[in-house]
Amino acid sequence: MTSKPLATIVSGGLSKFGRLKGKYAREIFMEAAEEAFNRCLNLDPKRDIEALFIGLMGESYERQAHTGPTMVDWMNLLPLPAARIESACASSGVALRYGIYALLSGMHDVVMVGGAEKMTHRTTPEVTEFLAMGADFPFEQWNGITFPGLYALMATAHMHRYGTREEQMAMVAVKNHRNGALNPKAHMRREVTLEQAMSSRVIAWPLKLYDCSLISDGASCLILTRPELAGKFTDTPVHIIGSGQASDAIGIYERSSLTNLAASKKAGREAYKMAGVKPREIDLAEVHDCFTIAEIMAYEDLGLCRPGEGGSLLEEGVTTLEGEIPVNTSGGLKAKGHPVGATGTAQAYEVYLQLTGGAGERQVKGAETGLTHNVGGSGASAVVHIYRRG
Amino acid sequence: MTSKPLATIVSGGLSKFGRLKGKYAREIFMEAAEEAFNRCLNLDPKRDIEALFIGLMGESYERQAHTGPTMVDWMNLLPLPAARIESACASSGVALRYGIYALLSGMHDVVMVGGAEKMTHRTTPEVTEFLAMGADFPFEQWNGITFPGLYALMATAHMHRYGTREEQMAMVAVKNHRNGALNPKAHMRREVTLEQAMSSRVIAWPLKLYDCSLISDGASCLILTRPELAGKFTDTPVHIIGSGQASDAIGIYERSSLTNLAASKKAGREAYKMAGVKPREIDLAEVHDCFTIAEIMAYEDLGLCRPGEGGSLLEEGVTTLEGEIPVNTSGGLKAKGHPVGATGTAQAYEVYLQLTGGAGERQVKGAETGLTHNVGGSGASAVVHIYRRG
Repeated sequence: MTSKPLATIVSGGLSKFGRLKGKYAREIFMEAAEEAFNRCLNLDPKRDIEALFIGLMGESYERQAHTGPTMVDWMNLLPLPAARIESACASSGVALRYGIYALLSGMHDVVMVGGAEKMTHRTTPEVTEFLAMGADFPFEQWNGITFPGLYALMATAHMHRYGTREEQMAMVAVKNHRNGALNPKAHMRREVTLEQAMSSRVIAWPLKLYDCSLISDGASCLILTRPELAGKFTDTPVHIIGSGQASDAIGIYERSSLTNLAASKKAGREAYKMAGVKPREIDLAEVHDCFTIAEIMAYEDLGLCRPGEGGSLLEEGVTTLEGEIPVNTSGGLKAKGHPVGATGTAQAYEVYLQLTGGAGERQVKGAETGLTHNVGGSGASAVVHIYRRG
Repeated sequence: MTSKPLATIVSGGLSKFGRLKGKYAREIFMEAAEEAFNRCLNLDPKRDIEALFIGLMGESYERQAHTGPTMVDWMNLLPLPAARIESACASSGVALRYGIYALLSGMHDVVMVGGAEKMTHRTTPEVTEFLAMGADFPFEQWNGITFPGLYALMATAHMHRYGTREEQMAMVAVKNHRNGALNPKAHMRREVTLEQAMSSRVIAWPLKLYDCSLISDGASCLILTRPELAGKFTDTPVHIIGSGQASDAIGIYERSSLTNLAASKKAGREAYKMAGVKPREIDLAEVHDCFTIAEIMAYEDLGLCRPGEGGSLLEEGVTTLEGEIPVNTSGGLKAKGHPVGATGTAQAYEVYLQLTGGAGERQVKGAETGLTHNVGGSGASAVVHIYRRG
């Protein structure tokens, strides 16, 4: 835990997540940006910020591409260089990584990274169709499979191979809804019982309604600096000490295993190695629970337990708010919501809050080291970052 | 001209541009990638390439987002980290810049940058609609204006302010079609006369058919290394010595002037300064001629002449293949074609060919310094790079 930081978070912002009626993505992003600007009183955004990297998955939702300049324009930060990064639901996780590249390059001292998505004004079939563009067109979309179906295939494979049970998946929902109820910005601030989750209607067996994350509107951002400059902007820096990214086959039919995500494993290994941190040394993690089975696989892929033991880890309570390694203290994609482009940097925002003691009722005491894990599509891309309190 | 290079191009590839029936973008990108791999025999792609940055503007054309892993998968380079960059028609110009960040960061030694777009299987109204997503939705698209209309507003403003004439715009078409006829990979390998251009049908007055670039399929890529490693891969390196990027208001109604693009000017100034090169020291340039008026504005914005003198520069023949500063030797977007996501790195590929003496019939003798200028939308983003023969 003595590696040199790659970059340092000096501020962050998160909009309310939910059904934000009558707002454009640019307006929602402004809400996140204003929080970040206000948190960091020594920051003069117009003078200090030198580039924006913004994740947004789908131009189809608002018929609006060219997100970089749109956001810069609305923040009144012209002529700031900016562009959109897209890697399906891992878009802003990758944007964060590109912000790190930019700082390490020596070309910039302060950059902004973030993400946004406006989804709820569209019908569910439209959203399902737009999301499906993150899966393979000729072999997956064309044959009618959508994301609940793809993750259902992984869930059944996991059940078959390891004996994972539907109740264990439902426990992810129960845990994350409990955390989300403590997060004022979460989309669904409501606890659910195991019985409610188990008896909710089937979406794609074995996945039921409460196994699926939420279609939400939202935005998130972080202000990053080179570590040596952080003191100028904040007394509570959070260092990024590891970054890993990997790709896997776009179609799940091409993969050697359906019970883990090779990209998550590879990205995790890279990030841990860079950070000099072992999986169980992490104090808390935000992982990509787009479906409950995805959180179980994440435990295993990130080395929090051995392959096949994700379900047991839940039953032992290791990942609850009071557990040894709390996972998805924000409520996760499951309860906080999943405005796809915003998710990666929203995860980083939660870790930033936790490591600076700003997580309120859901604060993990004494947390020093955190991890975020952001997955694109059915696992064709994954990004992992590791953070340390400054 | 003695500044330290930011990065070095050791190889490049370009697919045929045109109507590539029955091919997916991933297959077209493979064509570009194979050329780049074959040009660089000391490169083992699987061993050496450490990241891919790929520009693609529109998920709507093929209903396919998540371009990064899709391309990596098709190139058989898994688990290479990769993501899509989108800044409308400047997407791969920005991808090139991000590749430079990645190398300068010290995290990577060799990266691939590129772009692709598959457009011609869609109807013209569909393509017009998908392209329009690069303009502002609530105030531009919603009111029915599309890109020919936006550039027509700029053209009439330029005519009004500076006396620029329709014949001068047509001369851009004549010049670029003449160059394109010498480029075996150009979409339209056909010269046009001034009379043909002037009498072609009006699209959005004063812009006629021959004032508009082509809807094309195509892909392009470059292999970049840190300068000190270039000798391992090639005897004919091309150094990137300047990079500039800037944003402007997404809607042209918000801009202070319609006769120039502030983002081009800013990006150009930054790139020249970094490179230590003056505009008229450039030996050749590929500029963003999405419409003929755009090339005239580019001359002025990039300092090849004073504001308002772009038309005269054409009449003096300064930018023809035999002129002092040949512009768009490839044929430009106008004749080579404009598969939007591919354009930025296709411009860089042309400069790479010219500076390594590989441009065949359109070779500019003794070229040492080149420039590329890639614009997104109606000018809300622009990226400029400057290159020097190694």
